[in-house]
Amino acid sequence: MKQLSLKTDTGRSQIYFSDIFSLSAEKNSLAVFDTHTERLFGKYFSNQNAFTFNAGEDSKNIETVTNIFSYAIEKKLNRTSTFYAVGGGVVCDITAFCASVFKRGVQLVLIPTSLLAMVDASIGGKTGFDFAGVKNAVGSFFYAQKIYIFFDCLKTLSAAEYKNGLAEILKIGMLAEKKIIKLFENQNRDEFFMPSAILKKLIYLAVQAKIKIAQKDFYEKNIRMFLNLGHTFAHALESLSAFEIPHGEAVGWGLAQALRLGLSVGITESPYAEKIFALLRVIGYKTEFYDHTLLHDFKLTKSAFVNALIDAMRNDKKNSDERVSFILQKKLGKNFIYKITCTELAKIFSEKF
Amino acid sequence: MKQLSLKTDTGRSQIYFSDIFSLSAEKNSLAVFDTHTERLFGKYFSNQNAFTFNAGEDSKNIETVTNIFSYAIEKKLNRTSTFYAVGGGVVCDITAFCASVFKRGVQLVLIPTSLLAMVDASIGGKTGFDFAGVKNAVGSFFYAQKIYIFFDCLKTLSAAEYKNGLAEILKIGMLAEKKIIKLFENQNRDEFFMPSAILKKLIYLAVQAKIKIAQKDFYEKNIRMFLNLGHTFAHALESLSAFEIPHGEAVGWGLAQALRLGLSVGITESPYAEKIFALLRVIGYKTEFYDHTLLHDFKLTKSAFVNALIDAMRNDKKNSDERVSFILQKKLGKNFIYKITCTELAKIFSEKF
Repeated sequence: MKQLSLKTDTGRSQIYFSDIFSLSAEKNSLAVFDTHTERLFGKYFSNQNAFTFNAGEDSKNIETVTNIFSYAIEKKLNRTSTFYAVGGGVVCDITAFCASVFKRGVQLVLIPTSLLAMVDASIGGKTGFDFAGVKNAVGSFFYAQKIYIFFDCLKTLSAAEYKNGLAEILKIGMLAEKKIIKLFENQNRDEFFMPSAILKKLIYLAVQAKIKIAQKDFYEKNIRMFLNLGHTFAHALESLSAFEIPHGEAVGWGLAQALRLGLSVGITESPYAEKIFALLRVIGYKTEFYDHTLLHDFKLTKSAFVNALIDAMRNDKKNSDERVSFILQKKLGKNFIYKITCTELAKIFSEKF
Repeated sequence: MKQLSLKTDTGRSQIYFSDIFSLSAEKNSLAVFDTHTERLFGKYFSNQNAFTFNAGEDSKNIETVTNIFSYAIEKKLNRTSTFYAVGGGVVCDITAFCASVFKRGVQLVLIPTSLLAMVDASIGGKTGFDFAGVKNAVGSFFYAQKIYIFFDCLKTLSAAEYKNGLAEILKIGMLAEKKIIKLFENQNRDEFFMPSAILKKLIYLAVQAKIKIAQKDFYEKNIRMFLNLGHTFAHALESLSAFEIPHGEAVGWGLAQALRLGLSVGITESPYAEKIFALLRVIGYKTEFYDHTLLHDFKLTKSAFVNALIDAMRNDKKNSDERVSFILQKKLGKNFIYKITCTELAKIFSEKF
């Protein structure tokens, strides 16, 4: 079984890659599923304590956290117990949070079953849940002792779920790993939407690159900020669409806009941007700033779209001089934090985008 | 201002000692009180966001945690905010827990206002709240950036609250600091029940000794276990009395019983035990195993008392071969973990206590 290892301040996280879903869970443990993953993978944990909650981001809340604590107390779990998270980002984030604080911390094993969770939620030690409408308002930094990436979970995913994960893989490639970009350049679109040898290689490379970043900056004080490439745009668009636009679509679009902003302010090299635009289009992301479908769906004029987007980007809507932070790139691996006032930003969007 | 400093894996905790309650709180912050401490100390935070909950251990629950999160979100607090805990153990533990996970961790300042919190809850980075009847079922390890020990808070305490704290100070002295024991030996009882120069010195020495222990073992994997001296007995007695017996009384009694057990199994030196028994009696703790008031209050025979106590000590009531762990001492500073089966324990209690 292929392995990667992540060394942290407080221990070590081991990541296992395997084609087949297979593990023997510890006794005295708890497996957490959502209704979707319980149906698919519950059979592998038939002898364990198991807790299942309703699938969906709506469940990533303090009620689910409370229910997991209640179940763990009822089953008399203790400091030596292991929590297994079996699912996508919601299951991984909320189970990891509970594991980080139940009895001041138990053992944690993550089994990410979506492409996005394999390369994102499961790697890097960030846990959390949403509170009062704020995403990940409460959480912790806590590493899983073990993370199992079982490629056969990919068979269960829809095309939209592949797209969610591919945007993150591409982003990690742009930030830190040219082999990822090379693989995207040379392959046929279909290879990315199935558990192909190429996709497995991409997952491995993305996890490896993300480990390097997380290892340097566990508490997200500096370089880990770069992982927000494209995300200032993506979060604004998601919020504007009341989260109707899937995260992957928003990130794909956001990566293109980060390049466009970099071009506009003279930071980004044009051939690099053109290459990434092309890759984004091959996977199926929208790269134009004013997308006709988007404008149509939101029933907005271009200028109203610009204003709404900037409003969503800034924290304090009263202050028009407030500066918004972006991660911009000169080229692959050359990343910068760039701050710009909302006024300047509106000007650039209107005149250059 | 006298200071001590505690270095941890992830940073540094600074402890300030001062006679007078005085600090200027950061902007963008939150002060947490209970109804008791808000009345006494709320005036020092009149320009801050303030959250107050009902005084008492009953409030150390997930509802209070949720209410603190709601308030923090409503006031738009963020990663750069500071949470101030102003109170005893309950306020310190629950505020520190919220600070450790709100936005994955904000700044924390502890202002312990009870003697027990000054030497116990505020030092050592343990946070938590009770859940489904289990004490500190959920929590984290998280250090305050600053801890202010304002001696004038001591003026507000009852004799029972002094007794709660003095048992902990004596325990730390027994474990690791002979100067503490010397101060107890040479002083008049009254000096311990007022903000005397002696008591201030005892607090400083106890904090200093506890820092040394916590620094060596932040995640409580080994030597920090010694801080449980007397606590296996104390927790059993508290639980037996449905928490009618104050923690300090139970710990004082528990320290005596740990010595008695050490004497019975031939570990503890008799002159040392006799010296500590005498000190415990001076402060006003009950040192006899079978205390007449206790037996009377519980309406138990001696043998029923022994059985109930052992039942409370073991986790799994079905297993009579289960071993219970105690911290025992040879003499001051010579500490051991000692495991004994419930059967043997019952024999010793009945025949030798």
